[in-house]
Amino acid sequence: MENIKIVTSAMHVPDKVVTNDDLAEIMETSDEWIYPRTGIHQRHVVTDENTSDLATAVAKKLLDQAGWSANDLDFIIVGTMSPDALSPHTAAIVQGNIEAQNAFAFDLNAACSGFVYGMSVASSFLSAGRYKKGMFIGAEVLSKLVDWKDRTVSVLFGDGAGGVLLEKTDAQVGLIAEELQSFGDRGDAIITGRFANKNAFTGEISELDPYFHQDGRSVYGFATREVPKVLDKALKKAGLEADDVDFYLAHQANKRIVESMAKNFGQPMDKFPTNMEFYGNTSAGSTAILLAELQASGQIKPGMKIAFVGFGGGLAIGVQIWQV
Amino acid sequence: MENIKIVTSAMHVPDKVVTNDDLAEIMETSDEWIYPRTGIHQRHVVTDENTSDLATAVAKKLLDQAGWSANDLDFIIVGTMSPDALSPHTAAIVQGNIEAQNAFAFDLNAACSGFVYGMSVASSFLSAGRYKKGMFIGAEVLSKLVDWKDRTVSVLFGDGAGGVLLEKTDAQVGLIAEELQSFGDRGDAIITGRFANKNAFTGEISELDPYFHQDGRSVYGFATREVPKVLDKALKKAGLEADDVDFYLAHQANKRIVESMAKNFGQPMDKFPTNMEFYGNTSAGSTAILLAELQASGQIKPGMKIAFVGFGGGLAIGVQIWQV
Repeated sequence: MENIKIVTSAMHVPDKVVTNDDLAEIMETSDEWIYPRTGIHQRHVVTDENTSDLATAVAKKLLDQAGWSANDLDFIIVGTMSPDALSPHTAAIVQGNIEAQNAFAFDLNAACSGFVYGMSVASSFLSAGRYKKGMFIGAEVLSKLVDWKDRTVSVLFGDGAGGVLLEKTDAQVGLIAEELQSFGDRGDAIITGRFANKNAFTGEISELDPYFHQDGRSVYGFATREVPKVLDKALKKAGLEADDVDFYLAHQANKRIVESMAKNFGQPMDKFPTNMEFYGNTSAGSTAILLAELQASGQIKPGMKIAFVGFGGGLAIGVQIWQV
Repeated sequence: MENIKIVTSAMHVPDKVVTNDDLAEIMETSDEWIYPRTGIHQRHVVTDENTSDLATAVAKKLLDQAGWSANDLDFIIVGTMSPDALSPHTAAIVQGNIEAQNAFAFDLNAACSGFVYGMSVASSFLSAGRYKKGMFIGAEVLSKLVDWKDRTVSVLFGDGAGGVLLEKTDAQVGLIAEELQSFGDRGDAIITGRFANKNAFTGEISELDPYFHQDGRSVYGFATREVPKVLDKALKKAGLEADDVDFYLAHQANKRIVESMAKNFGQPMDKFPTNMEFYGNTSAGSTAILLAELQASGQIKPGMKIAFVGFGGGLAIGVQIWQV
């Protein structure tokens, strides 16, 4: 085990709620159609915020909860597939906003696996002995990458952010094992955020297309077939049986995917908590938001074993198993 | 020292060369204006490639040079501020293209400091003992983020990619020290790549603006004042004097910035090699391209101490000192 403490977790979503009934007013859809297929009743969308604003709100809560000064931080990593801009990177804006004078900052993009991949990088910095205290935040404003005329994708996503503080420790808590895997040959199944590729000497090589295009059937098949294999490898690396894990915090893309996973490992659904009902799919934010809710409500207790399960764009999968 | 071997390095730029004279044909500028202020005579731009194509070309060269199989790789990290898309991430496309079946992959954005920050993450994975072999590539197609009607920025940037293979080793080579720092409060000095922030329920919060906006004077002041302080801290951490370092491979933004740095540390310019003359500023690609050229020409010899110096968008600075 790599001895690292998840010191605290926090989440933030914008105030504005968009229900399935609200969506039914602007497109041909309904709660009766969306909910049974996704587990989603509503999502939050920004009204005047961007990704760095959601991340900054999380950062401030984290420092407040832990009683840390911003100057305690060695690094700030933001996992996002919907940054404010390609420059400045969102993590740098957060660093500036909270005045973390000693921190370096960068963005990481592994799409919906962003939480697990970000936790992998953050924990490596601590395990390598190079740094002592860090912040990882998954933050997304996916509403800006959604074509709201496209009912196949616009019903799925939401805006939100969640994060953690991590600290090197001597206590018997930390990362037990991880298994991360990339499936780049299937990358076309989830596409979003393309600027036009053009210049004055070549003309336009490819067009601007900010919007999500998702082959839902293919992604569903990928998630239900491949994620259990990666989770199985992570459990074996950790020397654990599925029963030994107290909570599986899976990326909140679709309730049916999570149910399929629980069934696959013979686990009850109360070990696979979900909250996509309230937030939709918030990509790199989803697992951190779920963790923050479960820690705030006291359901996650010291000594428990938690598996974080990320999957999605890339395509990519990542599993980490922690003792908290 | 963290014992890690830079196994090999490689670079790739698109074939198409755009000289300052070519630029003079489409905007009011000249080689006489550009070169003395920047050190740039020409840059390469894509004709039918995107960022993942440049990175894939580097990846193939790296494996070929080292005699590694793609399946040897534990991870692939791509540093970029100009990815093909926000999803799939560029590193996943590379992983798919080279069929690296055992590798996970993600993108990292620290703008022009991307090489140093990426090397920091990659080396942490190895030093933490979690992984043994990895690939880091810095790759950019900045020509798609340039407004070619804006002569203040379009003359500065180029397209290109460079990268390294890294391996855990018992040999006395590796990372001696690093110092990374974020200056997010100055992030507005380099802006690029903004999708519109809008949704069906809020309307447009902010507009689409793919293009670079750079406060050149402010960035120049930042680089010449702050980079030496960070480099000085890195040297102190490493227990080295400026004279002890054999080569300083600085981000190739502007020759005058590099000259100012050399002068600041009392070092001759041949210890601060430059190649922006041929490639312009290729952001996360620049330092790796320079490293690959110096290794290919035999100028970097085993046992040498090399300082990588990144600075730019974020704003961010990063320095690593390696024994190779």
